[in-house]
Amino acid sequence: MVDRIEARTIAGTVEGLFQALGDSFVSAPTSELALTYAGIPGDKHSGLTRPSNSREPWYPRGTPMRNERQVSILSTTELAEVAESLRIERLAPEWIGGNIALFGVPSLSLLPPRTLMIFSRGAAIRIDGDNGPCRKSGKAIADRVPGRPDLEFGFVQAALGKRGLVGWVEREGAVRVGDSVKIRIWQQALYPA
Amino acid sequence: MVDRIEARTIAGTVEGLFQALGDSFVSAPTSELALTYAGIPGDKHSGLTRPSNSREPWYPRGTPMRNERQVSILSTTELAEVAESLRIERLAPEWIGGNIALFGVPSLSLLPPRTLMIFSRGAAIRIDGDNGPCRKSGKAIADRVPGRPDLEFGFVQAALGKRGLVGWVEREGAVRVGDSVKIRIWQQALYPA
Repeated sequence: MVDRIEARTIAGTVEGLFQALGDSFVSAPTSELALTYAGIPGDKHSGLTRPSNSREPWYPRGTPMRNERQVSILSTTELAEVAESLRIERLAPEWIGGNIALFGVPSLSLLPPRTLMIFSRGAAIRIDGDNGPCRKSGKAIADRVPGRPDLEFGFVQAALGKRGLVGWVEREGAVRVGDSVKIRIWQQALYPA
Repeated sequence: MVDRIEARTIAGTVEGLFQALGDSFVSAPTSELALTYAGIPGDKHSGLTRPSNSREPWYPRGTPMRNERQVSILSTTELAEVAESLRIERLAPEWIGGNIALFGVPSLSLLPPRTLMIFSRGAAIRIDGDNGPCRKSGKAIADRVPGRPDLEFGFVQAALGKRGLVGWVEREGAVRVGDSVKIRIWQQALYPA
């Protein structure tokens, strides 16, 4: 039984960047993001803090808390896999509010909490963990694929373990499409059941 | 082979609280900590950001970064184990800069990154991960145990996997000695080697 995996560093490439500057969580492509400690300036999910929601049933809804979900990071490969299993032509990162689409990172959504993504211009994001797929994202997909209302619920199933990661900005700086990223994975061990 | 462990919640008790209000990282007992988004007000390790140091060789030393190491959390049981293996009478949490000493949490130092500690009065700390034992702490112990200069290096060995956790404040609030804490451990899985 594997009970420990040593620390190591892997690499990836920034294939797309997106921001949600309006009221909706749906994002739009951009060539550069200027990451700050509060996240992406003007983005729907920016802020040093945020009100808690249904993801945190242990707090009264709306409780102020530090915002560990500033940035949504997706894998273009995983999105293609989800699209295939849903039998749709494509699943664009912006439909589900992605901010950074990476290419070349195997099983991106399984990267462990605490993982550090260091982009080639210096900015860095600390990974909080995997992002749970929700019906709101499923609905946004269904809205874009005529005749497939089933996608609202279907996405939640199909995207389990493939819906990317959320994290917060550890080091400020710019990220541009085409940049490389070093991904530092810490030593891993399971806390006993 | 265990490849996944479901989320669950365990419990513990706050046995001691400590803060380092001077220049040294050595802390002193207090009955209450008022946790803020910047950590423990006035504490040596407080701040929304901090300069990087030798723990982050991937940044130029002194690089501003978000402070994920605001609070040091120790297990009184693990400290007793380390003391025993070093053949010293006791190892006080404050000697090595602890802020919160917990009792009743098995293998505290092995709790995984992203773990959430919710204290009974509402404050919450998000765990970044385990704290690597360093010579500076070893030296602080050696300074307090006459005739045992070997403890400076000995501590680094003896405390591996037992030196507690570091984390940042997710929800502000007070913590008092004797309070209980709920510890939410997320679903765990190893990222493949």
